[in-house]
Amino acid sequence: MTDIHKLTRKLQRKNDSKIILYVGDGLGGLPLEPGGKTELETAKTPNLDALAQRGSLGMSIPVLPGIAPGSGPGHLGLFGYDPLQYDIGRGVLEALGIDFELGPDDVAIRGNFCTVDGDGNITDRRAGRIGNDVGAPLCEKLNKITIPGVEVFVQHVKEYRLVIVFRGAGLGGNVNDTDPQRTGVPPLAPKGEDEASEKTAEICAEFLRQAAEVLKDDAPANLLTMRGIAKMPPIPTFEEVYGTKAAAIAVYPMYRGLARLVGMDILDAGQTLDDQMKCLEQNWNEYDFFFVHFKYTDSTGEDGNFDAKVQRTEELDTAIPKMTVLKPDVIIVTGDHSTPAKMKAHSGHPVPTLLASDSCRFDGSKEFGESACRVGELGIFESKYLMLQALAHAGRLEKYGA
Amino acid sequence: MTDIHKLTRKLQRKNDSKIILYVGDGLGGLPLEPGGKTELETAKTPNLDALAQRGSLGMSIPVLPGIAPGSGPGHLGLFGYDPLQYDIGRGVLEALGIDFELGPDDVAIRGNFCTVDGDGNITDRRAGRIGNDVGAPLCEKLNKITIPGVEVFVQHVKEYRLVIVFRGAGLGGNVNDTDPQRTGVPPLAPKGEDEASEKTAEICAEFLRQAAEVLKDDAPANLLTMRGIAKMPPIPTFEEVYGTKAAAIAVYPMYRGLARLVGMDILDAGQTLDDQMKCLEQNWNEYDFFFVHFKYTDSTGEDGNFDAKVQRTEELDTAIPKMTVLKPDVIIVTGDHSTPAKMKAHSGHPVPTLLASDSCRFDGSKEFGESACRVGELGIFESKYLMLQALAHAGRLEKYGA
Repeated sequence: MTDIHKLTRKLQRKNDSKIILYVGDGLGGLPLEPGGKTELETAKTPNLDALAQRGSLGMSIPVLPGIAPGSGPGHLGLFGYDPLQYDIGRGVLEALGIDFELGPDDVAIRGNFCTVDGDGNITDRRAGRIGNDVGAPLCEKLNKITIPGVEVFVQHVKEYRLVIVFRGAGLGGNVNDTDPQRTGVPPLAPKGEDEASEKTAEICAEFLRQAAEVLKDDAPANLLTMRGIAKMPPIPTFEEVYGTKAAAIAVYPMYRGLARLVGMDILDAGQTLDDQMKCLEQNWNEYDFFFVHFKYTDSTGEDGNFDAKVQRTEELDTAIPKMTVLKPDVIIVTGDHSTPAKMKAHSGHPVPTLLASDSCRFDGSKEFGESACRVGELGIFESKYLMLQALAHAGRLEKYGA
Repeated sequence: MTDIHKLTRKLQRKNDSKIILYVGDGLGGLPLEPGGKTELETAKTPNLDALAQRGSLGMSIPVLPGIAPGSGPGHLGLFGYDPLQYDIGRGVLEALGIDFELGPDDVAIRGNFCTVDGDGNITDRRAGRIGNDVGAPLCEKLNKITIPGVEVFVQHVKEYRLVIVFRGAGLGGNVNDTDPQRTGVPPLAPKGEDEASEKTAEICAEFLRQAAEVLKDDAPANLLTMRGIAKMPPIPTFEEVYGTKAAAIAVYPMYRGLARLVGMDILDAGQTLDDQMKCLEQNWNEYDFFFVHFKYTDSTGEDGNFDAKVQRTEELDTAIPKMTVLKPDVIIVTGDHSTPAKMKAHSGHPVPTLLASDSCRFDGSKEFGESACRVGELGIFESKYLMLQALAHAGRLEKYGA
């Protein structure tokens, strides 16, 4: 596997250029029937279309052809980190998703409240799908558990889901899930795959022992299982690999977390796209690279609501003039994956991508949409190479070799 | 990384076919404004257009998307050698660039004359940019330096630049630059990263000691720094990996050097494109593969002269009938990278590529230009795969597997 960052470390060049990466989550779509238009093609996007006419289009493949990525690998690819090389554990993603600031000594775990009977066998793997009103106070109780030698953090996520983090030197992240994936049997015992992970497994076991005590009268949520026990992988920072000072402007915590993972500063994005644009303008002079995240093209796709996704795509479009007025040297509009309303899910379809800069070889595109992107200058490329294009068009890469 | 040559060694088949690889250096360009045409699209190229109509077009990526290559990696890619795997040191390229015949026991070094003060601190890293009239005789003086156990070669390149080659068994190529990249400090001491390179470092130190003596009265050029200390990487020959007898017809020494690196015979190309065509005709029966290099599409691009690049592209076109009359089985026209006049530099834009043979799947192209290449049959491909296409269309590859 080509190490992109070995190359960018060597070739990076600093200058005063500004790059915006504007991600419409789940941007790519599907027509509802043969000959039809996708959500993006149906939407009225005059600003994106104008940008397409002075830029280059292409299609990005988030992981490999056909593979539908989660938000984690989808964004890592856009940030130029090979999503197959940097495998982010579920526990880490869950912690990032609630804005937990994970450090290098942290082991993050996704917890599920469950119900066990008198023999200790699981009778409900989701504790009767308790609501937030039940789950949140139980997490507060669990958060009081202390274990010598490590710090323990317990935070509620939603309903029966929680995050547990153990912070301590020398803890490994290779421990099995304790969720047996079926009822009628007790939770599995945590076991470490190596010495450092065995240490973590012992801490997990002690935590579960104390949790059983704490929760014994809280049926249906009288125990929990642990899944996706993982550490943050060592990821080089954006600044180190690209030489850019980068900031994230994202309303949803998961995307702030992913940006934090690669060392971006997290700005106060507010709650709306307008807030995000104000934040962008206010911080324009402080950073070289801005990651701006728009969630609703994905959530409407997940809902299977074609028309709502069209409408949200039109909303995405309205922010473009507020970006271009700042005169970025490079502006990229893309998605982390496709979420066709027709499929109500993330999909493996390539993702429409637009890059505009003064060094674009114009490809004659009249509008930004899947059909135009398919034959654009950027071709069909793996998303991990997008950052190379961004840096190149910003004049931030030296020539390779003489 | 896929080892292309493992495959071609296994699949190569000899026959009487002839292949021409015609490289317009820096061929790819950019339109000056949205909707405009590139240099290649502006140029009147009736012969290339006719060839495009009976061939297939595509876009080649020299290294990775966005990466602008130097001539070395650009050509290695076209020759089918992964430019990220075969990293050619600056000293080696500098030696190739003056037609120095480097052997496997040679360490090549780029030297820069510099000025040092009485304390040994550098006051000018380029010795006041002395002219050839000063630099050349100083190199002759340095060429008399002798060091026991190695042969020493010193050759002038241009102005303050020179090449030093140490020839001797067991010398390593991993030695730091002695140029400190700033003034007010002495040159760095050469240090080897391994035992063999430590031996080289000692020879460098001894050479520099003697050079200081030889040059002591030659201010401003009273010392030199060393950069890009490197050996030729072990590169398998064209004949071994492809089974073709190959020849280079290049006017500029750098390109002869790069061809020599992969084991091509170097023919007497003369000075003009007409000379090159005569050379091609005269040697037609002696070789299977001809690399013909045309420099001026690059140099006019580097000058930022759009019109001159257009004119040179038209000149490139005039040679086509002199090649097709010889009835090559495969003729490829491409560049080692793009050099848009708009950017006055090598760029990372994909490179227009044309391949004509009797086994082409015609793609309906009417002319040879970036817009047509973008949607051509060859697609957008890494240039290291071009040789596979050349061999395949020449019937020089067996089927892979049964």
